[in-house]
Amino acid sequence: MSAPAKTDPGNFFEDFALGQELVHATPRTVTVGDVATYTALTGSRFAVTSADPFAAAIGLRQAPIDPLLAFHIVFGKTVPDISLNAVANLGYAEGRFLAPVYPGDTVSARSAVTGLKQNSNGKTGTVYVRSVGTNQRGETVIDYARWVMVAKRDTDAPAPEATVPELSDHVGPDALSVPDDFNLSGYDFAAAGSPLDWDDYAPGERIDHVAGMTIEEAEHAMATRLYQNTARVHFDAVFTKDSRFGRRLIYGGHIISLARALSFNGLANAFWIAAINGGRHVAPTFAGNTIYAWSEVLESWPVAGRDNVGALRLRTVATRDKPCTDFPDRGADGKYDAAVVLDFDYTVLMPRRHN
Amino acid sequence: MSAPAKTDPGNFFEDFALGQELVHATPRTVTVGDVATYTALTGSRFAVTSADPFAAAIGLRQAPIDPLLAFHIVFGKTVPDISLNAVANLGYAEGRFLAPVYPGDTVSARSAVTGLKQNSNGKTGTVYVRSVGTNQRGETVIDYARWVMVAKRDTDAPAPEATVPELSDHVGPDALSVPDDFNLSGYDFAAAGSPLDWDDYAPGERIDHVAGMTIEEAEHAMATRLYQNTARVHFDAVFTKDSRFGRRLIYGGHIISLARALSFNGLANAFWIAAINGGRHVAPTFAGNTIYAWSEVLESWPVAGRDNVGALRLRTVATRDKPCTDFPDRGADGKYDAAVVLDFDYTVLMPRRHN
Amino acid sequence: MSAPAKTDPGNFFEDFALGQELVHATPRTVTVGDVATYTALTGSRFAVTSADPFAAAIGLRQAPIDPLLAFHIVFGKTVPDISLNAVANLGYAEGRFLAPVYPGDTVSARSAVTGLKQNSNGKTGTVYVRSVGTNQRGETVIDYARWVMVAKRDTDAPAPEATVPELSDHVGPDALSVPDDFNLSGYDFAAAGSPLDWDDYAPGERIDHVAGMTIEEAEHAMATRLYQNTARVHFDAVFTKDSRFGRRLIYGGHIISLARALSFNGLANAFWIAAINGGRHVAPTFAGNTIYAWSEVLESWPVAGRDNVGALRLRTVATRDKPCTDFPDRGADGKYDAAVVLDFDYTVLMPRRHN
Repeated sequence: MSAPAKTDPGNFFEDFALGQELVHATPRTVTVGDVATYTALTGSRFAVTSADPFAAAIGLRQAPIDPLLAFHIVFGKTVPDISLNAVANLGYAEGRFLAPVYPGDTVSARSAVTGLKQNSNGKTGTVYVRSVGTNQRGETVIDYARWVMVAKRDTDAPAPEATVPELSDHVGPDALSVPDDFNLSGYDFAAAGSPLDWDDYAPGERIDHVAGMTIEEAEHAMATRLYQNTARVHFDAVFTKDSRFGRRLIYGGHIISLARALSFNGLANAFWIAAINGGRHVAPTFAGNTIYAWSEVLESWPVAGRDNVGALRLRTVATRDKPCTDFPDRGADGKYDAAVVLDFDYTVLMPRRHN
Repeated sequence: MSAPAKTDPGNFFEDFALGQELVHATPRTVTVGDVATYTALTGSRFAVTSADPFAAAIGLRQAPIDPLLAFHIVFGKTVPDISLNAVANLGYAEGRFLAPVYPGDTVSARSAVTGLKQNSNGKTGTVYVRSVGTNQRGETVIDYARWVMVAKRDTDAPAPEATVPELSDHVGPDALSVPDDFNLSGYDFAAAGSPLDWDDYAPGERIDHVAGMTIEEAEHAMATRLYQNTARVHFDAVFTKDSRFGRRLIYGGHIISLARALSFNGLANAFWIAAINGGRHVAPTFAGNTIYAWSEVLESWPVAGRDNVGALRLRTVATRDKPCTDFPDRGADGKYDAAVVLDFDYTVLMPRRHN
Repeated sequence: MSAPAKTDPGNFFEDFALGQELVHATPRTVTVGDVATYTALTGSRFAVTSADPFAAAIGLRQAPIDPLLAFHIVFGKTVPDISLNAVANLGYAEGRFLAPVYPGDTVSARSAVTGLKQNSNGKTGTVYVRSVGTNQRGETVIDYARWVMVAKRDTDAPAPEATVPELSDHVGPDALSVPDDFNLSGYDFAAAGSPLDWDDYAPGERIDHVAGMTIEEAEHAMATRLYQNTARVHFDAVFTKDSRFGRRLIYGGHIISLARALSFNGLANAFWIAAINGGRHVAPTFAGNTIYAWSEVLESWPVAGRDNVGALRLRTVATRDKPCTDFPDRGADGKYDAAVVLDFDYTVLMPRRHN
């Protein structure tokens, strides 16, 4: 009976090697079905991902899928190989959206191990990976770094030489990908829902996105299954009953998606996410929580050689069960307001019309 | 800091002007993904919206989306501009479905203000609009009138001259749109699920649709987000906790869709909704409610120049948590049975084979 | 008033006649929207139904829909005619998947009555049917036998002559359909998620699929409505409150789909279901249950004339609220472990590379 060998237990810390390449399972042809489900779960209203003619008017062949939907699909594929035995998700950085993903495209994912560092307790270690999503033509559509604390299977396994990759704290303006396809001269501000363009936003500005969205178990589980993400904590009420929180945790990416969807009110023309600079899931979220969000403009960059588009580096903060009228934040002591669940640092593109 | 100006608070009563045109945000390319989600949420079984060959056999290029799905999408687009500050949805009338919407079509919405009347309390007023949904060729697919009571931002704002449009109490047979495409000679009664045709129904007849459908929070919220409807009362458990009902309200359109789906048992050949004459959301509905429905034939009209199709004006009444064996209704005193939640007046098309 | 005749009460035992043919209502064009919803509800990760290029590499024109999704759609269509008045679902057998169903195909269903046997109590009888699903070209895609205990409307109706069809206890290897399209030489084991091929599995082997999946009311109801299945016990909380279980039952097919999705971990290359040999829904399931699964290899068959594909007859057992580390099963006394809800006997195809 060779049965136990049939089941994949996921990789433990000592299973990773520096430079190792992992090809993740289950390529995914994304479709308008995924888009509809994503809309039903988030309520996203950005015109470029909602309407083909709007997308065509700015040079795209049709409405691309939401960059976050593409990100979640790539991320989900990495879970069985990278984080099934994760003790903690520590961070991500240098996320870049290099090409739009369209319905009909097939996304595959692979990762390379870029760093390893065993913890002093000898029971866990940090694994650094760079993951990429590619389309059916082999073009990279998403590229990001991630690090995660993974359990050892055998605490006696020898520690690897410690290697920690250098990672930028944000994707600089020169590294942003602004697809040549984007021809913002055809951007329809009325259809997009706001007359405000890039020049209307200034660093330091804060925006309350007002509305809240309550999450049900069925909703976050459907979203996470849509991404074929297999992390047990999101799905298994028996397994999580005896965990620290006693219940299913919501996938942090679902909170990012809800915050982004809520941000439409105030950032309707932030039509494209070009980069994920980093993010912190400050506190867990559970079914029944109501998510609110506010954003701060961190930096404002023109795009070299492109006079009709600019970039904004944003921080979007999400809270649970607390409206953001007063911009709940991290205090001077470094501690977050108890309602904050997400502090997400990313870069969006916005059209410019005053040129 | 110009932050407050970034967030759209929605229009208040004094923001509307007679004749004003509003272009609503976020055009929407409807897809087979929307159709699948709608089916999963309503269980609709009408063959014409379920199967391409069935639709092709009656002259359509493929299965159109459910007219109510198209209606909800158009309606959802109007919410941020028309009813974000609504105190009450007062009514709708003269709804006409002028052309089928197919997967791949892009629906846009705009409204014109056709009437304004401030209430004597000086705090609110009624806004009358005519809203239209158009496809990517600019053809009107849906046209309806709606009136809604909207709060004033500033009770000292001057009252506009009162103007109230005249609205028909129903769309008459001559105003019905029966697309030339509809070639009912190819109608497959067996595939449609019933041998009954238009001539089998008579005014005064009442039909109990038997089955009931229980609604979960995740379901109505997904439906309403699918329509990109932003009314907070449907989504935000924190906001609604202190409201009159203490919890989230279900979008009335979801109840209409459930009642229509249930009506298949008894009205399987009511294959197309041609008009919405009016409707009353008699009582609110909440997650956990089970919806039942019954219908009454109000009027029966042949369609001029078309011997293989007829129209029925119907009233479909929906109840919560009470089967409709006894046709719960409005009493002689004008009061509805306590279980009634919807009284919907609309006109369907049905094939005729005895000609 | 001919109203009562408008509503279809479903067939009672005495309404069936041996040899009777039933054409079921509502043909269904399956789409990528159905696929996305199915993925969101089950989390299925089999590559062949997830990615067009993977499917194309083994000779298919695109990713087919999951055979179980096709089965549920066909089964759902039979419900209004066969089992609306069912007292018990007794069994199914000889299920064969004869051709892949692709998004865009239209599935229709019909059944023939192959046996009738009134019960000695005179109140019910067993109806045997053979149901087939066909595509828009009239090709049979699914063929299965089913028997169900149906109530009599009138206990005085005469009993039909008892006829019970002979049914195989499993689909033998010679009767399996292995579409000529399947060209497994292009099978990508890395993309599929496992290096194991048919030769790695041996009869008697048992595999714990490890993960669990908790089910919400909204999820099973959405799945079952997606299949346009109208059995009231799945949807109507008022109707079921006074039933034996006091609440909504989950459609047994949803449990099969969850067990199949969970079986990916251990059976990732069981890329196709070729036959359903039989199945027993050992106990009902309800919202809140967490489903686990394990499988046993019953038989291993090469496929005649095809050296790169083999068949495995499997038993997949699903439990509720109990991990399958210890393979909860039927005891020597014939009684199942109290946690077992499903014992499903089916045959899968798997690629062979050692040839």
